[in-house]
Amino acid sequence: MHVWHAPRFLHMTPTMVEHSSLDIMCLNKYCHSSSSSSSSEHDKKIFTKLKLNLSGDYPRKNAEILSGQYGTNLLLIGAALMLAIAHHDPSVKEEHLLSFATCLMILQLIWMMWYILVRDRQKNTRTEKDVHATTCWIRGGLTLLALLSLIMDAFRIGYYVGYQSCVSAVLGVYPVIHATHTIAQVHFLWFHIKDVIKSFETFERFGVIHAVFTNLLLWCNGVMSEAEHFLNNHKRRLSALGYENLTIEHSEPDCNCTTSTCSMFSSSLYYLYPFNIEYHIFVSALLFVMWKNIGRTIDLSSNRKRLVTKTQGLTLGPILGLLALASTIGILVVYITHVEGSLRMRQSAISMFYIYGIVMLVVMCFAGASGLLIYRANHMPLDTSKNPSRQLDTELLFGSSIGSWFMSWCSVVAVLSTTSSPPYRWTNLIYSLLIVLEKYVQNLFIIESLYRQQETGEREDPELPAAPEIFSVTSSLAPPYNGIINRAYETPDRTCVTMENEQEESGQVYRCPRKHSEVPLPVGTKVVEPPNIKRQILKNIAVLLIMCNISLWILPAFGCRPQYDNGLEQETFGFSIWTTVLNFAIPLNLFYRMHSVASLFEVFRRV
Amino acid sequence: MHVWHAPRFLHMTPTMVEHSSLDIMCLNKYCHSSSSSSSSEHDKKIFTKLKLNLSGDYPRKNAEILSGQYGTNLLLIGAALMLAIAHHDPSVKEEHLLSFATCLMILQLIWMMWYILVRDRQKNTRTEKDVHATTCWIRGGLTLLALLSLIMDAFRIGYYVGYQSCVSAVLGVYPVIHATHTIAQVHFLWFHIKDVIKSFETFERFGVIHAVFTNLLLWCNGVMSEAEHFLNNHKRRLSALGYENLTIEHSEPDCNCTTSTCSMFSSSLYYLYPFNIEYHIFVSALLFVMWKNIGRTIDLSSNRKRLVTKTQGLTLGPILGLLALASTIGILVVYITHVEGSLRMRQSAISMFYIYGIVMLVVMCFAGASGLLIYRANHMPLDTSKNPSRQLDTELLFGSSIGSWFMSWCSVVAVLSTTSSPPYRWTNLIYSLLIVLEKYVQNLFIIESLYRQQETGEREDPELPAAPEIFSVTSSLAPPYNGIINRAYETPDRTCVTMENEQEESGQVYRCPRKHSEVPLPVGTKVVEPPNIKRQILKNIAVLLIMCNISLWILPAFGCRPQYDNGLEQETFGFSIWTTVLNFAIPLNLFYRMHSVASLFEVFRRV
Repeated sequence: MHVWHAPRFLHMTPTMVEHSSLDIMCLNKYCHSSSSSSSSEHDKKIFTKLKLNLSGDYPRKNAEILSGQYGTNLLLIGAALMLAIAHHDPSVKEEHLLSFATCLMILQLIWMMWYILVRDRQKNTRTEKDVHATTCWIRGGLTLLALLSLIMDAFRIGYYVGYQSCVSAVLGVYPVIHATHTIAQVHFLWFHIKDVIKSFETFERFGVIHAVFTNLLLWCNGVMSEAEHFLNNHKRRLSALGYENLTIEHSEPDCNCTTSTCSMFSSSLYYLYPFNIEYHIFVSALLFVMWKNIGRTIDLSSNRKRLVTKTQGLTLGPILGLLALASTIGILVVYITHVEGSLRMRQSAISMFYIYGIVMLVVMCFAGASGLLIYRANHMPLDTSKNPSRQLDTELLFGSSIGSWFMSWCSVVAVLSTTSSPPYRWTNLIYSLLIVLEKYVQNLFIIESLYRQQETGEREDPELPAAPEIFSVTSSLAPPYNGIINRAYETPDRTCVTMENEQEESGQVYRCPRKHSEVPLPVGTKVVEPPNIKRQILKNIAVLLIMCNISLWILPAFGCRPQYDNGLEQETFGFSIWTTVLNFAIPLNLFYRMHSVASLFEVFRRV
Repeated sequence: MHVWHAPRFLHMTPTMVEHSSLDIMCLNKYCHSSSSSSSSEHDKKIFTKLKLNLSGDYPRKNAEILSGQYGTNLLLIGAALMLAIAHHDPSVKEEHLLSFATCLMILQLIWMMWYILVRDRQKNTRTEKDVHATTCWIRGGLTLLALLSLIMDAFRIGYYVGYQSCVSAVLGVYPVIHATHTIAQVHFLWFHIKDVIKSFETFERFGVIHAVFTNLLLWCNGVMSEAEHFLNNHKRRLSALGYENLTIEHSEPDCNCTTSTCSMFSSSLYYLYPFNIEYHIFVSALLFVMWKNIGRTIDLSSNRKRLVTKTQGLTLGPILGLLALASTIGILVVYITHVEGSLRMRQSAISMFYIYGIVMLVVMCFAGASGLLIYRANHMPLDTSKNPSRQLDTELLFGSSIGSWFMSWCSVVAVLSTTSSPPYRWTNLIYSLLIVLEKYVQNLFIIESLYRQQETGEREDPELPAAPEIFSVTSSLAPPYNGIINRAYETPDRTCVTMENEQEESGQVYRCPRKHSEVPLPVGTKVVEPPNIKRQILKNIAVLLIMCNISLWILPAFGCRPQYDNGLEQETFGFSIWTTVLNFAIPLNLFYRMHSVASLFEVFRRV
């Protein structure tokens, strides 16, 4: 009896599998010829079982849990090490965590190599792809972030060379492995992330989930380093202002730098951290979708999409967005310079931040609410087809909002309960409530946009045979198909009437997508469709929200964190509780902003 | 244009809705007769929209997000208040949190009353039920927990009466409302929790999610009170041993008790907390399933189940289980008395706990692994039909394991990095690793058991028309149906052969459920089926695991928490980080144990 079938595949190349299945075939024949005796009966059972095992028929649900639990435990080991490091326990050092991460990265590299080799050998067999898994522009963005991560690795190597005599060799090995890992992973993202794995499923599940959690661990590590850096900065400021006498933990090596560029390297690192952090969390989300896709049967009919990025009528959105972006840069510079100054300058900088934030958030709430209003006026059934990528997007938006909602409610409690009354007390309250409202509305807008069925132009005839998959892989680059070709197959009005009748019977009423001209034009004449006014508004809203979200990402990512500086929450919750809350909430908020930018870009392309 | 349709229902009784739909019908008729003019065209649009709104056609996905976000924010407000209270901020007191919880409970009471009234009025229309939603024995267990909660409320009222002169009136109002809430909620659980809501969907979604998060908030409140109590006990012990000089926060009122029973009330409260905590978290899980079911179309064919709780051949499992339970009580008493004593007694108590734990966990791992081995030997396709209740069970098992895994990995890091060497150092390491392994194996076993299709006896003929639902609602009380009646419709061997052929074609090989006698008996003669040996083993395993999980729930619930007392982790992580980890992990672990008991009972009934 074998509980774990998965490890059998570990030592098996495809040719070996072929051999063994041949063996089983001939053994089965032998069994058939001598099925009278009881012992051969038993043999038969064993061989059938073996055959089952080799065909990888480990129950899917179990394989998911098996690998999911493995990955979770990897991350938890890393988190335990991080906590010990955060306490500055002398026997657990950063080197231990870095060696652990290095081991995980090496394992992932080996798995990726194995995967690519196996895929190369199976070149003749068609690999199914999930076109929803990712888009070109997401992969492009990730490649950019990966480049910045590589620069970071280069800085780390430079730093190690400077202090070579007195620091652990792990600090030199880690960036080298990390750079290799980054390059290999970007290659993997471009050529294999959409694969729907159908062979060695259980083993591949372990490989993919290992990759997911390795990236999550690297994300946590980045977040922790950044949080420590901010906390030290914050403590230094507090000490300079004479507030408290806090010990700042230094991790400087004991010897002098030999190359004179060490301080440059270590200070530049902190400007690159935000990009490295976003890179790892995005990659782990993409890999998670790949994991969910393992063994899935892709519905080919829902596998085509033809998105056309029309940019007509885009004026107000981009203008307002650029204005927001420009003012953000201004606010960032003023805030960072003023907050180091006297108490009065500090307070005015914080007040300025809150007023700026209120204006931004009101605009964003208004934009999101208008989008929802348009959707209410233009009813459309939701697309309920299975799509792990979209479902993950939804869950991540919702989940990562929790961090900043919690921070906001803490601020509300602090403002209402405080006895001191700084000038920014009530603006902080309004700002916090608007943060809650804005995320509430924006999530609703994004999720409804992602789930709405495509507008008339992109609607497909269900009778049409599915396009060959080779096309769909590059769908995001493909030229717009809707136009004459698509129209020729479509009879939208008839379909619509039938749909309504059916739905009336089943108790639900859906409205047909509104056509902008009531008189149906003859088939094939509408080559260039005049842009719908509602769509134009939606596109403008999406662009505006993208720019605003980028602005609200830039501020905390580059050091504008009034939650540390305003002192109100610290008074109510105490220094340690409040910094714990911030260390949890700010990274989630940064991820939320980046993720909503990606989702809004998808919305922009869909509407 | 209306964004939020939901509030429209707030002020509408069923009769009003009937009226308005009548109005719309006649208005629509009017529109048809004068459709030529442009203004009536516009009117028509408006009325169609109105009709849509009134039929509750707010997109389902959106309504879920809308209400989910509302609920999450309720909980976050509560959590922010709790953090402020944990810091002992003078301006945020427990009264504030209790008033907030009281308001939420009153709102839930109003909603439940409304719901029951509406259902009463619609008595003639059949309400769909989800039979998987809960079982009689879960509701019975919850009623028992609710009774203990009521006793707790009585103690609280007694406590308030004693200190009436100097404590806030909220402390008196809260237990009264909580008792009312408990009674009303148990009534709701018995008669409405299985309902599949199909009217006023958006509004009901808010009501149900409000109930979910109200219970979650009450759970958090219980957990916080209990954690504070343990922390104070722990600090008192540390001070008594002269380790550290920690300030113990007292929440005693300023005046003297007038009834001489106050101290009895307040000390008994802590023995009732564990039950109250489990009550609230279980209710919120059940309500969450109800929320997921809103608007769902129940597949009637999968809605039948006939579970037979056979108790033949149950010997080894219950005997070993009772042995475990008895030794647990012994260990608990010895631990609690010894840990207050001298350093040597304390260390021996901790060592004893770890050795006991190792024995328990080895037995549990072995039991779980044997179960999985049996499943591997007896291959059966997994049931992939939609079942929100089962999916939630799976997710909760997985999610709540994370807490104790994290605690275990922290212990591992601490043991490996520590410089001191108490006698229990290495037993702690083995215990921690076994905790990880045991949960890993147990989760796999439970999830596979829940997802496996029923054995031959319960397999149904797909041709058979679905049984009327009235039967399935009380399925868990119904007498065993399989026997002559069921057999008469079944031709298991033929079905099985067909299945295998089909599956061979589709590339997957499933084995037929093994029959214990190879010669097919004539239909109708096998009235009492001889119990299958594999099933008997599985039943024994399930019983053993149930008892072991109860044991491992009792220990931490009633004060046996060596993680506080052994000092190893505290040395590595520091007092504040480690108590934070424990405050997060121990409640999750308690929930895990209770939840796995419930799931294992379900497994026991299925195998």
